Amino acid sequence: MESNLNPIAGAGAVDLARPTHPLHGFFEPRAVAILGASSDPNKLGGRPARFMREAGFTGAVYPVNNRATEIQGYRAFASVRDIPDAVEQALIILPAPACMAALKECADKGIRFAQIFSAGFGELGAAGLEQQRQLVTYAREHDMRLLGPNCLGLVGVRNGFFATFSTALEALFPIAGGIAIATQSGAFGSCAYAIAIQRGLGLSRMVSTGNEADVDVAECIDYLADDPETRVICAAIEGCRNGERLRSALAKAARQGKPVVMMKLGATAIGIAAAATHTGTLAGNDAVYDAVFAECGAWRARSIEEMLDIAYFCDKLPVPTNARAGVVTISGGIGILMADDAEPRGLALPPMPEAAARQIAGIVPFASIANPMDTTAQVSAVKDGLTAVMEVMLKETDWATLFLFMAQLACSPERFEPMRLELRRLRQTYRDRCLVLIGPSDEGVRRKLEADGFVILDDPTRAVVAAAAASAMYARRQALHVPLRPAPGATALGAVHNEADAKRLLGRYGIPLLPERVCTSKEEAVVAALTLGLPAAAKILSADIAHKTEIGGVMLELNDAAAVAAAFEELTARARTAAPQAKIDGVLIAPMAGEGVETILGVHQDPVFGPMILFGLGGVAVELFKDVAFASAPLSRERALSLVQSVRASRLLQGWRGQPAYDVAALVDTLIKLSQLAAEHADTLAGIDINPFLVQRQGAVCLDALVSLRDASKSARPPARSAG
Amino acid sequence: MESNLNPIAGAGAVDLARPTHPLHGFFEPRAVAILGASSDPNKLGGRPARFMREAGFTGAVYPVNNRATEIQGYRAFASVRDIPDAVEQALIILPAPACMAALKECADKGIRFAQIFSAGFGELGAAGLEQQRQLVTYAREHDMRLLGPNCLGLVGVRNGFFATFSTALEALFPIAGGIAIATQSGAFGSCAYAIAIQRGLGLSRMVSTGNEADVDVAECIDYLADDPETRVICAAIEGCRNGERLRSALAKAARQGKPVVMMKLGATAIGIAAAATHTGTLAGNDAVYDAVFAECGAWRARSIEEMLDIAYFCDKLPVPTNARAGVVTISGGIGILMADDAEPRGLALPPMPEAAARQIAGIVPFASIANPMDTTAQVSAVKDGLTAVMEVMLKETDWATLFLFMAQLACSPERFEPMRLELRRLRQTYRDRCLVLIGPSDEGVRRKLEADGFVILDDPTRAVVAAAAASAMYARRQALHVPLRPAPGATALGAVHNEADAKRLLGRYGIPLLPERVCTSKEEAVVAALTLGLPAAAKILSADIAHKTEIGGVMLELNDAAAVAAAFEELTARARTAAPQAKIDGVLIAPMAGEGVETILGVHQDPVFGPMILFGLGGVAVELFKDVAFASAPLSRERALSLVQSVRASRLLQGWRGQPAYDVAALVDTLIKLSQLAAEHADTLAGIDINPFLVQRQGAVCLDALVSLRDASKSARPPARSAG
Repeated sequence: MESNLNPIAGAGAVDLARPTHPLHGFFEPRAVAILGASSDPNKLGGRPARFMREAGFTGAVYPVNNRATEIQGYRAFASVRDIPDAVEQALIILPAPACMAALKECADKGIRFAQIFSAGFGELGAAGLEQQRQLVTYAREHDMRLLGPNCLGLVGVRNGFFATFSTALEALFPIAGGIAIATQSGAFGSCAYAIAIQRGLGLSRMVSTGNEADVDVAECIDYLADDPETRVICAAIEGCRNGERLRSALAKAARQGKPVVMMKLGATAIGIAAAATHTGTLAGNDAVYDAVFAECGAWRARSIEEMLDIAYFCDKLPVPTNARAGVVTISGGIGILMADDAEPRGLALPPMPEAAARQIAGIVPFASIANPMDTTAQVSAVKDGLTAVMEVMLKETDWATLFLFMAQLACSPERFEPMRLELRRLRQTYRDRCLVLIGPSDEGVRRKLEADGFVILDDPTRAVVAAAAASAMYARRQALHVPLRPAPGATALGAVHNEADAKRLLGRYGIPLLPERVCTSKEEAVVAALTLGLPAAAKILSADIAHKTEIGGVMLELNDAAAVAAAFEELTARARTAAPQAKIDGVLIAPMAGEGVETILGVHQDPVFGPMILFGLGGVAVELFKDVAFASAPLSRERALSLVQSVRASRLLQGWRGQPAYDVAALVDTLIKLSQLAAEHADTLAGIDINPFLVQRQGAVCLDALVSLRDASKSARPPARSAG
Repeated sequence: MESNLNPIAGAGAVDLARPTHPLHGFFEPRAVAILGASSDPNKLGGRPARFMREAGFTGAVYPVNNRATEIQGYRAFASVRDIPDAVEQALIILPAPACMAALKECADKGIRFAQIFSAGFGELGAAGLEQQRQLVTYAREHDMRLLGPNCLGLVGVRNGFFATFSTALEALFPIAGGIAIATQSGAFGSCAYAIAIQRGLGLSRMVSTGNEADVDVAECIDYLADDPETRVICAAIEGCRNGERLRSALAKAARQGKPVVMMKLGATAIGIAAAATHTGTLAGNDAVYDAVFAECGAWRARSIEEMLDIAYFCDKLPVPTNARAGVVTISGGIGILMADDAEPRGLALPPMPEAAARQIAGIVPFASIANPMDTTAQVSAVKDGLTAVMEVMLKETDWATLFLFMAQLACSPERFEPMRLELRRLRQTYRDRCLVLIGPSDEGVRRKLEADGFVILDDPTRAVVAAAAASAMYARRQALHVPLRPAPGATALGAVHNEADAKRLLGRYGIPLLPERVCTSKEEAVVAALTLGLPAAAKILSADIAHKTEIGGVMLELNDAAAVAAAFEELTARARTAAPQAKIDGVLIAPMAGEGVETILGVHQDPVFGPMILFGLGGVAVELFKDVAFASAPLSRERALSLVQSVRASRLLQGWRGQPAYDVAALVDTLIKLSQLAAEHADTLAGIDINPFLVQRQGAVCLDALVSLRDASKSARPPARSAG
């Protein structure tokens, strides 16, 4: 009992100065102290030591407990200060009030990394939050990093560093593999670990960040992006405080070629309900996260099962470098089910090439040739028939993914053995392809297939979903969009009271406008209309009337001077009736714009992710079908075009039913300019609606605009540039 | 070796005359002969005997093989005729050419039920189909029923009747329970059985119908609806030959309170591509199946996993008689994920009632009260905290379903035991509620929970999907819509050449029309316009021009006589240019209809299900978002209203943004009348488009109509009434 298990060769062997990731000491400590360690291996304080012993942690473990000299076979110490050797990390499993003292002890010992499992901090409200802040302040002053408090801890599967009290690890130990799981919530994390372990997925690391007083999920993703043991990152967040950090971590993983499968749980929806702009209302919380994840190469999973299926695919298989897939099946119905599943998810099943068709007809002359390739059950009479068909498809196409639906063949180990060997041969010959087997299987057979580099799932739909996501992530990684915030605009925005001011601002950025005049008398209005051209449109102008249509504040198709004069009178009368307190700035006179497709362009100043650009088509497409999309500002030309194309209704712009197309180039040009404006004035703009923005056969024009400025006194986030 | 296993007490004990379902002899035979039985238990012909022996089949088994006197412990016979006892059913596992002779032997022996496993019939094309027809003809003449050919057979779990060669049963035997699986495809069925068996779901019967020369999946559903061992029916079809039989089987199951979970694989799409009407094009194949399943109380599952999850829910739990649910969770994020999953699937999570909130606050004072009810992980410090919170919600609400997300608690059998006992107490106290546990679990714990009447799934999303489907099916069963085809209309439809003819027909059924006149000169047109009222609309009228808008054949807002006269000239000129061969019937003059919402009403004559009514809103909602729905004709008032409400864009009719509502009653009235027309003339009508049908603030009116008649010589289905 003189030595600890797996001790470090000698004191001083822990080289704290090695140039590694700032979180390295959390994930790969050489020596760890457990403050609040318990002799009872089933207690919260006893589980970490027990798990590390059972998992064969490669570092030294120092339980700290002033009532024991030995804990679970490890030599125990009354205080951290008594530990004779250097210690890199501390696990603090003490009541909340004792944590600060413990942290100080750790600092004195030179410990730089502390996990605080204890609850009783920020999650309880103001008082707890203050305690939490004090911990962070102290840690920063002493060059320490904190994980937690109120967290579940951290697990390394290969190094046996099971620094957690999660009971998810009690029943089964994880298999080592390439899947990392980082979650904010411990309960969510535990559930995901347990499911992954039960499924036999290969895991590298698991970490829960709890209250995120210091380290957050984004920084863990950043670490895992560098981690050689991790091939794919699963992450679940409830909120995000620092959009730049999340963006940059996701982009780093993408550049390393590592897929990130995200779950975003919960909706912060700060300020959305009270959004001043329509764009703000449409932003909700989800649409912006969707946009950011996609831009940074990540995938948003909608269920734990989907997240783990995708991770399993990415861990076991090569990267699918195109979104084309072939299907070989012994059931025609399943083939059609898979085709139905694939298409809306962007996975193409191209027709069978002629050369492949010829060869396949030679193997299964009784089957009709197509993709999905239904060999029918008769293939069982052809020796190695299924694998022969697969081989032709692998040889004659460049499809990244090939699915084999084999019903329950893999349930019978002996009967399946010859086919398994043939499959293995294919796997070894076509190493760059993703081979996905579908059907229930015997446990032992499944393990062997996985060891050979196959994915096997029992449900065809799940297999298609996973492959589609992996392929989409590859494409996203090739087209990363992590906008660098430009310098603030040279000139200030100035005051924006009404529609005329708003349009003047847009005009400064080159956004196309109609010639318009602000008129304060009916005579002025008539002159303006005759000068600008009939028929004319007239709109009430007032900073106090944001939604002028609703009070009848817009009159269109004014065909002559008399109509214009009457409209002036009518509009001012209506405004006085509807909003007696409103200050009327006049009436805006413009020519009618002509035919076109009404779209909506918008700027949403997201409290987490900064300026986002919205695009949608007018009318029911937006109102009922929420057919809008967001992208981070500023936009490149490619990104602006892909924003337009990502909206379903934008097919109307391409010339519906043989009619000529609308001027998408002018639309894209405006989106870019709007995004410049949004990015340069991120600190002062709250939001912009350009609604409608009329896209015409030639050109495009802003018909109405609303600009809303931030109230500096209520600013919900620090100035954008300081977030980097 | 004198006697067979489980022999019937004496010859003649098989009472073939008992008054049961026509398929009873397939599912519960007392004696079965196996033609083509093999001594090798691993061969196709050897597996049924082996499986029945292993499963302890309760009837007698008579292998027939002229080269053996004993097969797998059963006494064998050289011919069916040699069997001394009465035999109810035969399994024919012989090469296709030998099947007819075997069938004759069976008929001679008085066998009334024959399963033909053999392939080599209709699936091979014309020649095989002819062989298959001969089998059916012979069987009908001899009062025999056939299952197959090319089928996988039939399994009864409780009676041990494993009349199949599916290798799905080799590895694991099924657990007895209430889930029946009927599939057309053997490969699909095998896969589904194997997954269900691996998951440990409780199964009653499995049947594959193969080529369906006689018995089809619909008739199996009909049997299973009566089967006391079956609580829920899973069925997968690739096509359907007899819509009436499927409808009536589904409705019977619904009336018995048995949920039916359907998968429809493949698309027959007969005639859809070439549909004469827009409605026909929109029908596709899927939308009509969706409508029929919903009307008949069934649920359409989109994956095997979803199908089995729903079946598991329905087998283990009571019927959820409302679509309200509560969530108790130890992870806030999971609660929000589940709320996000529930709402779009029609499962409501109502707010926590005041009385419940008060009591729950007493149990978990640290948690905020809501539904989903997040107790936080701190609940672990409260003895029986989770179950106490659940009990309050069960007591104080009538919510049919209560979910408990417990992360990985059920992974640790010992730790979980006290909670398991509390859960069991709740189960026994609140027997009419659906209690769904969510989280990974130890296998033994799961079995115990299931035995106690719980469902436990590891993925929250899957649990929500299953509960939502079960609740929706209950509601559907309360509102069955299985239309009885009315007698054909008293008067024939007559010829329908052009828009005017079409509208005359619609007018006969009381569908509201504008006053319109067919004019053959510009003078007539002017008189018509002045009489009917200005502004006027003018449209070219020709049986040869179906899509008049595309050739500029419609002119609107004609404000005076000159404009009407000019329009007459212009329209006839345009028609002559665009379609020089077209016979011009004149120009239709009508007053402008005024403001309203443009909708589309249609009739699609489905080759399987007969006349279906379409409803949708005009414009992008239909074109881009395929936001349309179908219902079977004729419609009741309730069904017509629910058809309208099932279209997303119909919210526009209810008065968008505070504007007054449109006349939905007039719309519903028209849908009913159109459905009468469709039903009465199902044999002659091919399709109808009323597009647009303008719904106004008061009243509604058909603005354009296209009626397409069936070409009797090409009729794809027998006359509708003979299908019953």
